[in-house]
Amino acid sequence: MTTTSRQMILGMHLGTGYGSQANAWRAPGVDPAAYTDIEAQVRYARAAERGTIDFLFLPDNLAITPSMGEGIPQATIDPVVTVAALARETSRIGFVVTGTTTFNEPYNIARQYKALDVTTHGRFGWNAVTTADPAAAANFGQTIAERPVRYGRAHEVIQAVQALWGSWGEEAWTRDKDSGRFVDLDQVRPVGLRGEYIASQGPLPIPPSEQGQPVIFSAGGGEYGLTIAGRYASGVIGAAFTIEDARAQRRAARQAAHRYGRNPDEVKFFAGLMPLIGSTVEEALARRRHLDEVSAPRRVPYLGAMLGLPLEPEQVDRPLTDAELADARPSGFDPRSQRALEVARQGWTIRDILAHGVIDYHPTPVGPPCVVADYMQEWFEAGACDGFWVSPDVNEDGIDTFVDEVVPILRERGLFHEDYQGTTLREHLGAPAQYGLDPRVWQEAS
Amino acid sequence: MTTTSRQMILGMHLGTGYGSQANAWRAPGVDPAAYTDIEAQVRYARAAERGTIDFLFLPDNLAITPSMGEGIPQATIDPVVTVAALARETSRIGFVVTGTTTFNEPYNIARQYKALDVTTHGRFGWNAVTTADPAAAANFGQTIAERPVRYGRAHEVIQAVQALWGSWGEEAWTRDKDSGRFVDLDQVRPVGLRGEYIASQGPLPIPPSEQGQPVIFSAGGGEYGLTIAGRYASGVIGAAFTIEDARAQRRAARQAAHRYGRNPDEVKFFAGLMPLIGSTVEEALARRRHLDEVSAPRRVPYLGAMLGLPLEPEQVDRPLTDAELADARPSGFDPRSQRALEVARQGWTIRDILAHGVIDYHPTPVGPPCVVADYMQEWFEAGACDGFWVSPDVNEDGIDTFVDEVVPILRERGLFHEDYQGTTLREHLGAPAQYGLDPRVWQEAS
Repeated sequence: MTTTSRQMILGMHLGTGYGSQANAWRAPGVDPAAYTDIEAQVRYARAAERGTIDFLFLPDNLAITPSMGEGIPQATIDPVVTVAALARETSRIGFVVTGTTTFNEPYNIARQYKALDVTTHGRFGWNAVTTADPAAAANFGQTIAERPVRYGRAHEVIQAVQALWGSWGEEAWTRDKDSGRFVDLDQVRPVGLRGEYIASQGPLPIPPSEQGQPVIFSAGGGEYGLTIAGRYASGVIGAAFTIEDARAQRRAARQAAHRYGRNPDEVKFFAGLMPLIGSTVEEALARRRHLDEVSAPRRVPYLGAMLGLPLEPEQVDRPLTDAELADARPSGFDPRSQRALEVARQGWTIRDILAHGVIDYHPTPVGPPCVVADYMQEWFEAGACDGFWVSPDVNEDGIDTFVDEVVPILRERGLFHEDYQGTTLREHLGAPAQYGLDPRVWQEAS
Repeated sequence: MTTTSRQMILGMHLGTGYGSQANAWRAPGVDPAAYTDIEAQVRYARAAERGTIDFLFLPDNLAITPSMGEGIPQATIDPVVTVAALARETSRIGFVVTGTTTFNEPYNIARQYKALDVTTHGRFGWNAVTTADPAAAANFGQTIAERPVRYGRAHEVIQAVQALWGSWGEEAWTRDKDSGRFVDLDQVRPVGLRGEYIASQGPLPIPPSEQGQPVIFSAGGGEYGLTIAGRYASGVIGAAFTIEDARAQRRAARQAAHRYGRNPDEVKFFAGLMPLIGSTVEEALARRRHLDEVSAPRRVPYLGAMLGLPLEPEQVDRPLTDAELADARPSGFDPRSQRALEVARQGWTIRDILAHGVIDYHPTPVGPPCVVADYMQEWFEAGACDGFWVSPDVNEDGIDTFVDEVVPILRERGLFHEDYQGTTLREHLGAPAQYGLDPRVWQEAS
């Protein structure tokens, strides 16, 4: 066994509960009612914890969007309800839950997230996002504001939430039965924040957790996204298809943290990963072909657009011809096009090109567990990320497979811990303790 | 054993988790950290379920108010988080959770409450209230609007929430793996409600629960409160100090339901009750004296005001003199004054008068379990209520005492069921099934 000083941090994407593939709910062994069945989510959470995964990542979605096709939800039934239940059945794994700053009142989310942080004994993190989906806005009787307004509100909401989290000082909760002093009110501070978009007086009547207060994650880069990552985030949920792109994203997040007076190491960058695992490449592809049996033909025209070729659904079971391969030009509009062409040149049928996950939302190493581990090692050692958020194709067996087959290889190579090193999410992330709004942000805001 | 055709329905008030007395957290055997300890709440929920109590009632509070004295919270750490955890450890008891219509977006609460209804397999109810506390408003950067505005918003929020709950029709969730049809989109209806205060497009991506959708409770009477009770409520959380007042409140709620085209029996009225149980009256009083040891003197002046007498804290350990009893005049401003005078005339010390709970928020029968059962029987048979919401003084042993000592007497008298008769809260309440906004309300609104 070799060791390196730096080890990767891993998150597991819980998604809708079914898995990251749209047809995961139809996969063999999957209960199609798992969406509403907390027992199923408990199985998945326990499988991830068995693998000492650092955190579960729960996305969120505030509308049924047209892209949902057959009406398949894009998130768990409700992240807060789901985490509150999973907290009962796990003891070490963290939870990173997406919640929008656009349609929530800071007091309400500050309370629920802090309640989860306290009842999980310090295992909670908030992925603070903005929402730009008009269908979501319509569910709140609103329209989507311009980006500066959305992010202006996001900063105010995050600052108010962090300040509310710090309402009860570190030692405020005396709960001394003898003296009758339940809380030391001298250590309870109102918030009194009033911004352009929101305001909250506070205090929030919840004591600190074992990690003080939840950590903040952010997702999405760009100039605006980086102001969130730089000021508040302990983790960034990234999306990149190449090592170069991931390194650039990670560097930008670290620079943003530095710009706001923080140590760049306080911000961990997580690359997305959708491994397709089988004992051989062919077995892995067969698994995916089965999942995509119906949907693959519908995706052929889009693959064609990526390659600059007019491809039709009925051509799904043939490889590209030599003439087509010669004519193919990867689209500059889709960063996945280059890999799609590389896979096509290996002679696979169009169905198998698609089965390689070339139009998935994240990179998809395909094959035996060591292929996935190699891939992760290469990215990690190239400085492309501090860890990964892993999206199993089908949760029911995909989490077990990753935990039982990939995690041991990573451990053997010294790339991943043998066991949890701490009990809180901040400890898992190496994030410093915090009580209330970061003083560096206070300073800047005042 | 005698039987009556009508049996009472019982709720158990979970409160802060400690119990209804402000000093419950200091009582012997109570963990002063129970506020944040879900394990403690689980014990209480299981105790209530062992007694086949129909539902747990969780109040809510959106601010630390000055009346909180030493900063003791007035509600659980978060009702949604608490119920999601308790749902895992119980299987039959219902949950009635208070949530304000004033500072919540209908889409957010519709989603969380429906998620809880689905994951509890149809055991959820929403106590839909308005908030008039300025400290709560300040936590949302607002001030308290006039009553017509608060209730105007309340009606819109409840209607939007009920409509969102009905988004997926009764048979919409096909989840058919063979055909690949996850949901029958023909049975998924948008909501498209736009009112004066809120709007929501919908649909909400959550299927019906075993009871279709949650029931609505309301609290608070008056002209405005009765429009909520009459239109939507399956249960009313009442507060009355006399049978006459309770009968009047119950009659008003039933008449309101009739006025809105509903069967008055659809609305169950629950009287509040704070039993003080001991094997003798003296033992019960001793329990309470211990709880109030420090706070009793502070309450003496208020007791004096109730009786029209100038009483001072240092007089707490003497009875009223004959001259005082002759001079005493029950205050017309506090409905508890008459009973306070009756207790005083029995010759108790002021401390013991207070220990009778004469300035508690609900009637407090004092003594052996049969006294409590007699009291409940009298109210129930007088038509003062359809059942009670019971507030134990201290949850840690108070729920067990009620379940083990009062419930068996009620059962023996045929006043309370021997076991749960159904699995859903609607079944416990005898509430009719509902999918979406009640058509009688739709008709009226359109």
